Amino acid sequence: MARTSGSHSEITGPRLREAAQRLFARHGYAAVTMRQIAAEVGVQAGALYNYIPDKQGLLADLMRAHLEDLLAAWADEPRGEGPLGALEAFTRFHIRFHLERPDAVFIAYMELRNLAPENFAGIEALRKRYETELEDILRAGQAAGVFDLPDTKLATLAVIAMLTGVTTWYRDAGRLSRERVAGLYWDMVRKAVGA
Amino acid sequence: MARTSGSHSEITGPRLREAAQRLFARHGYAAVTMRQIAAEVGVQAGALYNYIPDKQGLLADLMRAHLEDLLAAWADEPRGEGPLGALEAFTRFHIRFHLERPDAVFIAYMELRNLAPENFAGIEALRKRYETELEDILRAGQAAGVFDLPDTKLATLAVIAMLTGVTTWYRDAGRLSRERVAGLYWDMVRKAVGA
Repeated sequence: MARTSGSHSEITGPRLREAAQRLFARHGYAAVTMRQIAAEVGVQAGALYNYIPDKQGLLADLMRAHLEDLLAAWADEPRGEGPLGALEAFTRFHIRFHLERPDAVFIAYMELRNLAPENFAGIEALRKRYETELEDILRAGQAAGVFDLPDTKLATLAVIAMLTGVTTWYRDAGRLSRERVAGLYWDMVRKAVGA
Repeated sequence: MARTSGSHSEITGPRLREAAQRLFARHGYAAVTMRQIAAEVGVQAGALYNYIPDKQGLLADLMRAHLEDLLAAWADEPRGEGPLGALEAFTRFHIRFHLERPDAVFIAYMELRNLAPENFAGIEALRKRYETELEDILRAGQAAGVFDLPDTKLATLAVIAMLTGVTTWYRDAGRLSRERVAGLYWDMVRKAVGA
């Protein structure tokens, strides 16, 4: 019985998180009830809190997991040579990672205003850590004379906004493959940083 | 009495729209009730429909008004010379217009999923009209050999995403003036299009 219950919570927790992510992305955090999340997975509403925190904790967990995955995946990503190679790797990685996770990305951007202040600070710190990864590349390129940027902090935010924008319009059935889109963005990013 | 009632609806309608815009931006469309909107302006909930449509119609009205203002303001904006002058004018205009209307911009991007299909089509058409304004500039520059862009449609979306991103981080009390920020973005846009 301990085993059954163990397997249950191992499977049920992640399934509830997935259901919450799907529902938050489709209808918005404010419009979704814990009862709907439970119904998606076939769990009694009263048993929900055995598997997951309350709705606010769930939102914070989803955003934190998304940003921790992002940081871990980027840490594992092979870089090309020098600042230019690193910037190309970052550009292609960012586009690929974000296109693969439309629901998580949508929530990460759209639901920031619904985070309680104590959760917002932690999420914001993770987001800044990711931005710093790009800023370090831009600073290194600037110092090496490879890039020509009047403001590396602003350039960091500009490049990330440009790349993330791909998630709002890209469709797999469209005229361009993901690989081709990444190549076209890389062409623009490279030029934008003056390389 | 006719006169009083006339002035009332002239003042009350816009005040209700303003209140709705503020509340939608702060709490999200899904979380705001018509009763809250009425209370903000001191109108009886039952009298609300004398002044404004239902919540869905109100959301569509706010987004439509924002995009129509955007198109009208851009039509009135002085352009510099040639495609490069037009692109600089567009860059500076886009940043200025969006920084001046944080609530309207926030709603225009965040609440698209809450538009009913019959409203979405009209809003989408207005958004595309604005994108086409930039795409026409990029095509003209490409044809004139002033820009070097492998894909003008993708470049249009990339530039708009990059510029609009400024609304997520810019604060008037920060280290950079609006004018300086616009200048720094223009430097990156100019380079990104190969000019």
